Amino acid sequence: MKETITNAGRASVMIQALPYIHRFRGKTVVVKYGGNAMISDELKNAVIEDIVFMACVGIRTVLVHGGGPEIEAVLKKIGKESRFINGLRYTDAETMEVVQMVLCGKVNKDITAMIQKAGGSAMGLCGLDGAMLRARRIKGDQDYGLVGEIIEVNTSSINAVLDNGIIPVISSVAYNIGTDAPAGSAGTAGSMDVPADAGGALNVNADLAAAQIAAALKAEKIILMTDVRGVLKNINDPDSLISVIRRGELDSLKKEGIVSKGMIPKTDCCSLALEGGVGKAHIIDGRLPHALMIELFTDEGIGTMIE
Amino acid sequence: MKETITNAGRASVMIQALPYIHRFRGKTVVVKYGGNAMISDELKNAVIEDIVFMACVGIRTVLVHGGGPEIEAVLKKIGKESRFINGLRYTDAETMEVVQMVLCGKVNKDITAMIQKAGGSAMGLCGLDGAMLRARRIKGDQDYGLVGEIIEVNTSSINAVLDNGIIPVISSVAYNIGTDAPAGSAGTAGSMDVPADAGGALNVNADLAAAQIAAALKAEKIILMTDVRGVLKNINDPDSLISVIRRGELDSLKKEGIVSKGMIPKTDCCSLALEGGVGKAHIIDGRLPHALMIELFTDEGIGTMIE
Amino acid sequence: MKETITNAGRASVMIQALPYIHRFRGKTVVVKYGGNAMISDELKNAVIEDIVFMACVGIRTVLVHGGGPEIEAVLKKIGKESRFINGLRYTDAETMEVVQMVLCGKVNKDITAMIQKAGGSAMGLCGLDGAMLRARRIKGDQDYGLVGEIIEVNTSSINAVLDNGIIPVISSVAYNIGTDAPAGSAGTAGSMDVPADAGGALNVNADLAAAQIAAALKAEKIILMTDVRGVLKNINDPDSLISVIRRGELDSLKKEGIVSKGMIPKTDCCSLALEGGVGKAHIIDGRLPHALMIELFTDEGIGTMIE
Amino acid sequence: MKETITNAGRASVMIQALPYIHRFRGKTVVVKYGGNAMISDELKNAVIEDIVFMACVGIRTVLVHGGGPEIEAVLKKIGKESRFINGLRYTDAETMEVVQMVLCGKVNKDITAMIQKAGGSAMGLCGLDGAMLRARRIKGDQDYGLVGEIIEVNTSSINAVLDNGIIPVISSVAYNIGTDAPAGSAGTAGSMDVPADAGGALNVNADLAAAQIAAALKAEKIILMTDVRGVLKNINDPDSLISVIRRGELDSLKKEGIVSKGMIPKTDCCSLALEGGVGKAHIIDGRLPHALMIELFTDEGIGTMIE
Amino acid sequence: MKETITNAGRASVMIQALPYIHRFRGKTVVVKYGGNAMISDELKNAVIEDIVFMACVGIRTVLVHGGGPEIEAVLKKIGKESRFINGLRYTDAETMEVVQMVLCGKVNKDITAMIQKAGGSAMGLCGLDGAMLRARRIKGDQDYGLVGEIIEVNTSSINAVLDNGIIPVISSVAYNIGTDAPAGSAGTAGSMDVPADAGGALNVNADLAAAQIAAALKAEKIILMTDVRGVLKNINDPDSLISVIRRGELDSLKKEGIVSKGMIPKTDCCSLALEGGVGKAHIIDGRLPHALMIELFTDEGIGTMIE
Amino acid sequence: MKETITNAGRASVMIQALPYIHRFRGKTVVVKYGGNAMISDELKNAVIEDIVFMACVGIRTVLVHGGGPEIEAVLKKIGKESRFINGLRYTDAETMEVVQMVLCGKVNKDITAMIQKAGGSAMGLCGLDGAMLRARRIKGDQDYGLVGEIIEVNTSSINAVLDNGIIPVISSVAYNIGTDAPAGSAGTAGSMDVPADAGGALNVNADLAAAQIAAALKAEKIILMTDVRGVLKNINDPDSLISVIRRGELDSLKKEGIVSKGMIPKTDCCSLALEGGVGKAHIIDGRLPHALMIELFTDEGIGTMIE
Repeated sequence: MKETITNAGRASVMIQALPYIHRFRGKTVVVKYGGNAMISDELKNAVIEDIVFMACVGIRTVLVHGGGPEIEAVLKKIGKESRFINGLRYTDAETMEVVQMVLCGKVNKDITAMIQKAGGSAMGLCGLDGAMLRARRIKGDQDYGLVGEIIEVNTSSINAVLDNGIIPVISSVAYNIGTDAPAGSAGTAGSMDVPADAGGALNVNADLAAAQIAAALKAEKIILMTDVRGVLKNINDPDSLISVIRRGELDSLKKEGIVSKGMIPKTDCCSLALEGGVGKAHIIDGRLPHALMIELFTDEGIGTMIE
Repeated sequence: MKETITNAGRASVMIQALPYIHRFRGKTVVVKYGGNAMISDELKNAVIEDIVFMACVGIRTVLVHGGGPEIEAVLKKIGKESRFINGLRYTDAETMEVVQMVLCGKVNKDITAMIQKAGGSAMGLCGLDGAMLRARRIKGDQDYGLVGEIIEVNTSSINAVLDNGIIPVISSVAYNIGTDAPAGSAGTAGSMDVPADAGGALNVNADLAAAQIAAALKAEKIILMTDVRGVLKNINDPDSLISVIRRGELDSLKKEGIVSKGMIPKTDCCSLALEGGVGKAHIIDGRLPHALMIELFTDEGIGTMIE
Repeated sequence: MKETITNAGRASVMIQALPYIHRFRGKTVVVKYGGNAMISDELKNAVIEDIVFMACVGIRTVLVHGGGPEIEAVLKKIGKESRFINGLRYTDAETMEVVQMVLCGKVNKDITAMIQKAGGSAMGLCGLDGAMLRARRIKGDQDYGLVGEIIEVNTSSINAVLDNGIIPVISSVAYNIGTDAPAGSAGTAGSMDVPADAGGALNVNADLAAAQIAAALKAEKIILMTDVRGVLKNINDPDSLISVIRRGELDSLKKEGIVSKGMIPKTDCCSLALEGGVGKAHIIDGRLPHALMIELFTDEGIGTMIE
Repeated sequence: MKETITNAGRASVMIQALPYIHRFRGKTVVVKYGGNAMISDELKNAVIEDIVFMACVGIRTVLVHGGGPEIEAVLKKIGKESRFINGLRYTDAETMEVVQMVLCGKVNKDITAMIQKAGGSAMGLCGLDGAMLRARRIKGDQDYGLVGEIIEVNTSSINAVLDNGIIPVISSVAYNIGTDAPAGSAGTAGSMDVPADAGGALNVNADLAAAQIAAALKAEKIILMTDVRGVLKNINDPDSLISVIRRGELDSLKKEGIVSKGMIPKTDCCSLALEGGVGKAHIIDGRLPHALMIELFTDEGIGTMIE
Repeated sequence: MKETITNAGRASVMIQALPYIHRFRGKTVVVKYGGNAMISDELKNAVIEDIVFMACVGIRTVLVHGGGPEIEAVLKKIGKESRFINGLRYTDAETMEVVQMVLCGKVNKDITAMIQKAGGSAMGLCGLDGAMLRARRIKGDQDYGLVGEIIEVNTSSINAVLDNGIIPVISSVAYNIGTDAPAGSAGTAGSMDVPADAGGALNVNADLAAAQIAAALKAEKIILMTDVRGVLKNINDPDSLISVIRRGELDSLKKEGIVSKGMIPKTDCCSLALEGGVGKAHIIDGRLPHALMIELFTDEGIGTMIE
Repeated sequence: MKETITNAGRASVMIQALPYIHRFRGKTVVVKYGGNAMISDELKNAVIEDIVFMACVGIRTVLVHGGGPEIEAVLKKIGKESRFINGLRYTDAETMEVVQMVLCGKVNKDITAMIQKAGGSAMGLCGLDGAMLRARRIKGDQDYGLVGEIIEVNTSSINAVLDNGIIPVISSVAYNIGTDAPAGSAGTAGSMDVPADAGGALNVNADLAAAQIAAALKAEKIILMTDVRGVLKNINDPDSLISVIRRGELDSLKKEGIVSKGMIPKTDCCSLALEGGVGKAHIIDGRLPHALMIELFTDEGIGTMIE
């Protein structure tokens, strides 16, 4: 950003981006944004600007976010202790209230306002709006409280927003269709038999939500913004980045231990999206300023692309 | 609700509501909801059902809400003291964060989920979405912090939502267009010179927001749901309700002390709406179950109507 | 209708109808109306109000009617004797003229005007409009004159009317595509070879017309309003009503004599509609005021439902 | 029609009609049809063909008709005597019923079927449909029974039909908005206070109805098909036809006795239409086969044009 | 054209054309126009009038043209010699420039202006516009220079023009997608790897272009206007015209020598169109004035129809 | 273009262009292109890329061009001498034919193909298409032959093309409405009295055509690409560029001799456009690569802006 570039050089840069812009115009790209890329204000601004640029050149851009650190901070403030079971936050009613407040009220609307300020147009939504993300509580050996898994994504509101040229910003809070609701049920009075526990909010994993939204929208791309460079051959060597992985190779990479720990759920999300009909999935480093712009509009592929 | 009504009676009741339904079909009605009507779960449910019914018979229904008590509760939880100046909450940055979280994340999305559960379709928005409520900080002798007054309502998103048959639920949190922004400016990069303080959230009065939204939408009606019966001739006699007031009479009613205290800002809101082109303004008692249904669909006018 | 119901009770009644309203919104319901339910002015008014209410809450409502008694009355007035063969009115040219005049000119337009007066919006049509009901003369051992069977229903005009929020009121008078016209032919100059006898009106059975219209529209429901309570186990015991019959059971019910006489063509119509893709068929008692409202919007199923 | 014309000649004839077709494409033309042009089957067919051709080349064609002789015939059949006051048929309830049956059920639907047979697409309507022609009973020294004057024409249904490429065929039967209904009232439950006598049918003059419909549609032309050649300078000399009259000249023509007797109401209709914004009014001879085609698509202006 | 026809006769002629007009309304007809029919001004005018009439009565009319003689004339003017290989014009860059100038700049825009003058609405396009006709250079033993074969027709622009009621006039100049471009490639920056030779113009056969356009549009008819009467049984006897040929018979007609010489590519074009889904193909004599009108709107089939 | 720019730098450049992009999105910009900027292939490519970029980010971009040098070259080739009267090319019929061929067939379609190759979407039109530019021959002391002045611009086709996301490329060849045609006449059979000389092509000045098109479209901007830097205070000092001129100052600048010679018609065009409602007019140096990009999307205003 310190480079001095002449206006002729600027014109030339934009022109060289044209073929990339044409490639993605009118296509849907789902960006999962969160974690450390969201901490620094400068980085946040850079991501927002990228998102606004994407929408501006005609990409149907959907932003999905979580907000673990912000939730943690507010829970701390009110003196509520967090409890994790198998890596999932145990979510009692009070915690759910905080999760919803922080994600839908703070993180979501802050991003929305930043997009507006940057000249874009955004609408801050969550899975409760239009019962867009329909989920059921996770059932299993353990009780995770109000933690859900998405059963169905209702894309009509998302597409309506996109059709109006507006960027939907979506929090990973889902609408509970109720334990006994059959798949395909909306868990509402319209479907007559509303299960007793339907209608509340459920805490869902934001990466998974992004993958399921991307699949439901038959998106061209899903881009997960993380705080690592991508899948590394040697986890200690940042230069050992694997640029392209075919979906079929993921299993053996897991067995070899190359895809391990925190990278496992990320690549699982990518698989889920690809199986659902998404064109390509990217794991990129959100700490790199304008990583989205570089990935989409230059000849440099950053991070790991899974196809 | 304890009445036993035959099915023939039920049919008859609905049929008798027909002329009222025809009168309001396709018209816009803005409901300001908050305060004590929002405290009891039973009352909340009743209001939500009324809203869903209104939308269901073709009324373009907009729900605007504040949430003082909920904000108070969270502030208390985090140990933050409230400070009021001339009846306005002094809103520092930390308070604004809580106001936004509680209104946009909790109250707003809870209402949205309840509407969905009741079989309606809703989208939970605030003034930041699409920079819908454009405000500037209040200037005056006093510093109120991040308290704003709405300069312009951008109705395009609201109308787009209504056109899709969805109920917009709107929190009284506004988009700051910046101190120096001229009227008509969006305070965004699209208008090139973004004032330094533009882009954040401002705390605005929910009654006023409702009135300004109603005026911008050229609504048929605005209905303020309060915790009093309406304007009383004798404040100690609940049977002294004034059913109809002409706008021109408000001044003398104030002088006579009949419109006094908390009722003054309510009637001022009504005046503002009427001057902005709204057909009629109602102050009704939200503690009465299904007050909206009774007001709109029976021959009984409840509360005070100002025209 | 003599019940005294408070306004709170009224509100509550309407709210309790909400789930039913949601269930049928946007769905198509074809009502066949005629016979004795049409005789009394009070009953007629009640049916009209029900129809208007249905349309008002978003049900795509189609009203199909015949009018035997009215035809009889006018034939008598002009001194024309009726002649029936196998239960079908022998229809010579003069009779056909009277049938058309009475059904399309009197019964149809009277209903249309009543719907308008009740605040609804209606258009009075018959099978000649847009050659909507395309029929051929019945061929058989007997000559029935200008009696036809519908070969094809052109739904485009009906749907256009419904899309405009208008209730189509349809007389059972069909457009003669001509004896030699192949199926799929319109019997018009657009299809070049117009059979000699094409273009006139044919008398068709109103129940069958309703069933074929419902099938062509893939309606959610067809409701036949009759002057009996429904299918009775014991024809002499009005309390022996069979509420639900599966389509497959009809044959054995006929064999047992439970479905007999006038009920046979009614249930045959229901079968025809169900086979054509209609969701459910109802035979209800049109003499019961607001039978349609009770059937659709309360928990009381009246009459017999065939599914 | 006896001319032998080669196919080359046919091609040439059509090509020469092109400038005329271009002139009227997309414009609205209201044709009032009735009287003697309607008696002969051959003439009727010719008029229908003209109407279908007009619609086919893109003219928004509206057909308005009365049917005095047919009404007379049926009244005679049922032994009901006609009574005229000041040239208006005194219309008691029984007569109104016959008028409605004959116009809306017979004449209207017969024309509709003929248009369909000729390859066009038509919908047979009257003033009751959509309460399209809103009328009040004529008040005066005399009681004419159910005779009305049109207060307002609701063009929305007519335009909807035309927009679908369908020819509206309209009977001169109007919807009674009730004696006490203010102008602009629909006389329906939607407007809440329905006058006691609202909702029935009124008998209105077909020429006037056509003129008022043409004015409401801001038609390019109204064409009255009569059984005279037009306005004649010398009523005994059919060759003394006046081809063009300016609206301002009508008064003096009346004074001179050139416009007299039956021609007075015709020219008054034309004036009414022209004052209402119609471009030109024509009085043509419906006994001339294909008079409409000749008037519109050749260089021969037939009859009298008032502008 | 010398016939004297009364206005009654004119009306009658038009009415008799109605069934034909109804048959083709809303259908697509592709007319290939060129050769000698284009030489005489009088004939040109007649063809243009026919085209305008067709569009005027609702036929989606597409005009495709070449222009050999005009190209020849300009080449001569600039002293450039023509060279033919296997009947194809060898097209070097300078020749291609002339071909493009003459077809797209002169012939095409002259026709467009004539259509406008005749009261129609036209847009003069070629295969370069919207890269509508996508072609590759012909590969073979011989080098034909810039001669191409169409790989794909992009119908979106053509349909957009037709939907606006405008006649597309299309020159047989194609867009070169480049030698190495895979089928389905657009040869543009949007598809990223633009072959080196992509983007220029290629000379394509106008008959083939018409056939491929007709197939891509799933046209009802393609009409090739030639300077012969059609397929003749005996090439020396103009009265031996074969009116109808089934596609399957073409091979044996070729073997018998009945379809020979210049007629072979014409019938091959017809086959190509029919295989591509076109309804019927016609080879008609463009020297006959108003041949199109006669073929389409009278009972006289002229030329040879292949189905 | 020789600058080495990192991908981070590239991202940053694009982001910095965002506010400019937002400012012009959805606005109409008319670019007049021709003269020396059109000579060099490299410059031509640069202009085309700029145009494609503009359209790609949502600017409604219209390209108007002339082509003096190309016309000259072809005239020379065919041995036709040019003759100028008062700076206007005397245009006899043969010259007009060449002008039309070269502008509409060569220059126009070459530009169209280049836009397609660069990934954009274009349609090559001229004033004859849809009779878009309606002109009359210039009358005066001198006979200029087929030289015209535009009387009316029909924007409907241009807007239809723009609405489809396509760039209209428009040649300065106009449709002759005929000498005697009244203003507002289309000079076509649709308006019945077609003047004898209507329907042909007229040669019009491309700068003026661009200005009149911009005015008719109420464009945000017109940009004239010339081969000078803009308006210079001292014509010999390229650094004396005047960046901004108010419309009112032009007269005195002419009097002072600062606006002189070839700059006079350019500034007159600008005045014409501004008077017609265009926002701003720019005279920029087409010899500077990517002058359009720099002018529109950087903080550097190049050339002279007149407002």
